[in-house]
Amino acid sequence: MGKNLVQKILNAHLLEGELIAGQEIAIRIDQTLTQDATGTMAYLQFEAMGVPRVKTELSISYVDHNTLQSGFENADDHRFLQSVASKHGIYFSRPGNGICHQVHLERFGVPGKTLLGSDSHTPTGGGIGMIAIGAGGLDVAVAMGGGPFYLTCPKVVGVNLTGKLSPWVSAKDVILEVLRRMTVKGGVGKIVEYCGPGVASLSVPERATITNMGAELGATTSVFPSDAVTREFLTAQDRADVWVELGPDADATYDEVINIDLSALEPAVACPHMPDAIKTVREVGPIAVQQVLIGSCTNSSYADLMKVAAMVKGKTVHPSVSFGIAPGSRQVFEMLARNGALADLIAAGARILESACGPCIGMGQSPSSGAVSVRTFNRNFEGRSGTKDAQVYLASPEVAAATALTGVLTDPRDLGAPIEIAMPEKFLIDDRLVLAPSDNPEDVEVLRGPNIQPLPINTALPGSLTAEVILHVGDNITTDHIMPAGAKILPLRSNIPAISQHVFAGVDATFPDRAKKAGCGVIVGGQNYGQGSSREHAALAPMYLGIKAVITRSFARIHRANLINFGILPLTFASDADAAKVKQGDVLTFADLGDQLGQAETLTVKNETTGETFTVRPDLTERQVAIIKAGGLLNFTKQNAQ
Amino acid sequence: MGKNLVQKILNAHLLEGELIAGQEIAIRIDQTLTQDATGTMAYLQFEAMGVPRVKTELSISYVDHNTLQSGFENADDHRFLQSVASKHGIYFSRPGNGICHQVHLERFGVPGKTLLGSDSHTPTGGGIGMIAIGAGGLDVAVAMGGGPFYLTCPKVVGVNLTGKLSPWVSAKDVILEVLRRMTVKGGVGKIVEYCGPGVASLSVPERATITNMGAELGATTSVFPSDAVTREFLTAQDRADVWVELGPDADATYDEVINIDLSALEPAVACPHMPDAIKTVREVGPIAVQQVLIGSCTNSSYADLMKVAAMVKGKTVHPSVSFGIAPGSRQVFEMLARNGALADLIAAGARILESACGPCIGMGQSPSSGAVSVRTFNRNFEGRSGTKDAQVYLASPEVAAATALTGVLTDPRDLGAPIEIAMPEKFLIDDRLVLAPSDNPEDVEVLRGPNIQPLPINTALPGSLTAEVILHVGDNITTDHIMPAGAKILPLRSNIPAISQHVFAGVDATFPDRAKKAGCGVIVGGQNYGQGSSREHAALAPMYLGIKAVITRSFARIHRANLINFGILPLTFASDADAAKVKQGDVLTFADLGDQLGQAETLTVKNETTGETFTVRPDLTERQVAIIKAGGLLNFTKQNAQ
Repeated sequence: MGKNLVQKILNAHLLEGELIAGQEIAIRIDQTLTQDATGTMAYLQFEAMGVPRVKTELSISYVDHNTLQSGFENADDHRFLQSVASKHGIYFSRPGNGICHQVHLERFGVPGKTLLGSDSHTPTGGGIGMIAIGAGGLDVAVAMGGGPFYLTCPKVVGVNLTGKLSPWVSAKDVILEVLRRMTVKGGVGKIVEYCGPGVASLSVPERATITNMGAELGATTSVFPSDAVTREFLTAQDRADVWVELGPDADATYDEVINIDLSALEPAVACPHMPDAIKTVREVGPIAVQQVLIGSCTNSSYADLMKVAAMVKGKTVHPSVSFGIAPGSRQVFEMLARNGALADLIAAGARILESACGPCIGMGQSPSSGAVSVRTFNRNFEGRSGTKDAQVYLASPEVAAATALTGVLTDPRDLGAPIEIAMPEKFLIDDRLVLAPSDNPEDVEVLRGPNIQPLPINTALPGSLTAEVILHVGDNITTDHIMPAGAKILPLRSNIPAISQHVFAGVDATFPDRAKKAGCGVIVGGQNYGQGSSREHAALAPMYLGIKAVITRSFARIHRANLINFGILPLTFASDADAAKVKQGDVLTFADLGDQLGQAETLTVKNETTGETFTVRPDLTERQVAIIKAGGLLNFTKQNAQ
Repeated sequence: MGKNLVQKILNAHLLEGELIAGQEIAIRIDQTLTQDATGTMAYLQFEAMGVPRVKTELSISYVDHNTLQSGFENADDHRFLQSVASKHGIYFSRPGNGICHQVHLERFGVPGKTLLGSDSHTPTGGGIGMIAIGAGGLDVAVAMGGGPFYLTCPKVVGVNLTGKLSPWVSAKDVILEVLRRMTVKGGVGKIVEYCGPGVASLSVPERATITNMGAELGATTSVFPSDAVTREFLTAQDRADVWVELGPDADATYDEVINIDLSALEPAVACPHMPDAIKTVREVGPIAVQQVLIGSCTNSSYADLMKVAAMVKGKTVHPSVSFGIAPGSRQVFEMLARNGALADLIAAGARILESACGPCIGMGQSPSSGAVSVRTFNRNFEGRSGTKDAQVYLASPEVAAATALTGVLTDPRDLGAPIEIAMPEKFLIDDRLVLAPSDNPEDVEVLRGPNIQPLPINTALPGSLTAEVILHVGDNITTDHIMPAGAKILPLRSNIPAISQHVFAGVDATFPDRAKKAGCGVIVGGQNYGQGSSREHAALAPMYLGIKAVITRSFARIHRANLINFGILPLTFASDADAAKVKQGDVLTFADLGDQLGQAETLTVKNETTGETFTVRPDLTERQVAIIKAGGLLNFTKQNAQ
């Protein structure tokens, strides 16, 4: 029977288990990446493991999140990251070099390899045929140390592309269509593999836009074949040598198949406040817009920005619109500065922001109160922009640029003849802002600023547990809800005691104090709990506050793995009826945890407040049970090393 | 007897008084400018005056301070400023158009005119022969309403320039030399007029660097003649029509004369933490540097950045240095983007920041803990960078660029042959980001976000006053000490109740609560109290907290005027012996204020805590007494209108 591409790459990296969907497997990781907001914690964890040099083929530490530097913390983190990278054999991409996913795609990704990144948009690498997965920093640290990456073997969804995009319709509209069909929880436990005759019509940056925002499906990752288009891209990046042809067998099968006719798509937006709230631009209509932002790891490639520059050339941004542009990488930025496109953008009235994630993570450019903001980004969760009542729409660069000119949400097809941007034959190659690690690691001093606090370590799981329900929340809680980002909180990423004061800040600001006072707590959630970013702070900070278990209807993949990594029990209600038996403030007893966990399929929990009992499922592998009992992966790793 | 240039321009604008140093005069204001951090308050005050349209020749509202937008507040302020400008006949320079002083010099300044700006670096306009003065927002509001600007007629210091700058020596080194000689309080009550044969060797941007940073002398303003060099600059800006020749008479006299031989100067720096702590680069030596920043209203002109770009072209920033560049205006930014210099900067590893004040006001790019930061800016007050223990050195673009390459403080003469940058024959002219006011003001709705709070108004001065000394501080207290700027506090500039919680944050964080509790308070300071920026928040927020009087050894000009404008008594100790008679926590009684203020040269204050009495001088004109008795200039203006 023919194999699909996912099966081929996973098979080539399989270390434990069998490729049967739903079973735990372990795979070898070839490359890792981190960014600064998750990286400081990942490297503190790597240091705690005591491995002197990374054992991967390539590990890179990027700085792209905390670049505003409103206080000493960010610059201290950058120095820590630079020095710890140099000491342990990790390449370091300096601030200003661009967004990790964009730079990695351009300069370091390799078809057929595995990439583990401490950022949920790591699947960008799927655009050149990598299995590129987002994970918590601790999983990345383990991979850097040569350890396998454990995951639930996913189902493979084949997205069969036919036809060709119409003029003014964009790769962004493809992923918005996939999101419309699958929803933000539709990808959980799945890898999305793009196939079919339509693939060849999409450039690598277009494919990367699609795999990047596949993160919003909750999917493990997304991947495109490595074909002639891939070779062309890698050749233009002076990396033809890493190209290999990779694709599904002709008779490959998929667990599910979705058919998309590219020629039937039209310009669309994700409406507030979810990436799957999809409508066409025509359906939404010409609503007034106060801000347009172009950038982020989803849509800030050379072609994206060249298209925008061509659209606004000789025109002027609408007087009511603040129009910001953050180039995705230094390569993109310098090419636009050399060929005049950047001058055209400045002339049109664009505000040029540093090449970094910037406003996509609420790092600056918060819109005005109640503003409508149209962004080429990947997430529009409520409040993520830094403005609680802003209405954020996600769109293609074409929709965004058209809107910046008119001041109302605009279908670019209304602007007239489309613009064709040719991919360059040669990209501008200059890796000077990527520093190689030291050849003399013993001479490198790791620089720790006062904001870089030691890693808190959990204690072993007790044999039985009595704990209060500190918080009861609904469906689709994101990691932005649990551990907000934004300009005020992100600088505390290296300081768990400080950042833990902001857990659930937008949901219930009393949570940290109540949790600490209780000493031992439980969170109860709904469907798809923990969707969004890979930030392990959403597990680590609650752990620091005394959270011992989270009970939900279902979990997002990375967050569930992070909970396990830090020794927090991830439990799901056995039934809807059981879910109704718990309220905030109730005290729950998990008896005989020591005996039952890992033995029984379900656990019985007693609600001491109501006297009722109910049933939950741990769904943990033997390895995961051992990790939780040890109080987290670091403890587990140390115990096994003894 | 011949007249100097200052006398000529003041004379042409004199409305009240005589040009006798030390006496109060009133002058007509031709142009005003505001920036966003002081502008919101200025326009709230203008609205409170009830004048429908500005009565100046030209009034412009710039946005250059709060451009990071970490929260809804900044964008709300921008919308307020844009709408209030449109309604009242004010031009509006959009975010991204650049720093007010740089843009005003390029596009709007006119030789021989008076300019009043709610920013202390307004004297930049002196580079083309304007009398350009920084003032509090309320003074600017009054000027917009057609009212005169009152000031103490200053002495005129003639700085006689001879010779010509040596290669690698810069205009920045000229003003550093003036600061070395005069100190940060040496300019109080004075205007500095540059004259002599050396003037002709300096370009307009070089002159503007010198007059800009003349603010650090405490001077009322600084001014250069308008000559052939000025004509050439204005012609290149397509504004030859506004040029007039202006200079001192051949037999002009000055109250003081300073002689500077330009050819004797060498590259210098202002050392931490004062702009007058001047040493040559050679004296300081090759100390390790972690950050280099180029920009600010002092040194971000076309020629400045072209020089930096040429110096770093083909080279790479040192691995230990974070190298940031903020172009001074959109004109500069676009010209560099068109001619390849921006690409050269990006290639060398520079981090390109938005065209705005940015890190100069602590708005981002805070250095790492304990870092040495070399900046082309104008102020290096402790903590202003956002990093309390950073060591900030102020230097020329040449010193900064050389240092960015080597990683240690570097005299650019060590780099070899100097670089000559020709001034362009034509600058790139494009004023599309400057919006003209509406022709139908009645149709314009002023947009107020929730952070824009009504202006607090003081009450009339009571006949006698008993108040506690809430704070006792030493010499050279800056407005950054009194009302800090930076990324966390600047967004509150439109919200006095909120920002008042941060008064003296770095000096004594308990000040706001103690002041509010006391209900009625006094601040005691030393020499040169209130130096630095023009921010009236340094008077308005203490007023809101109940401060009724400030007693010092001496005041900085703008701050003293702001205290009067908001009805706070500015008093100086009659003698050193008297200054020793007051401690923090003492309770003071000012008896018979109603009778004595304006009648007697001195006031007797009783220290109720010690039982001693001491003497203070109000030094107020009749008009100022009336303003203070009314509880501030707004009350005074309203009373007089009745």
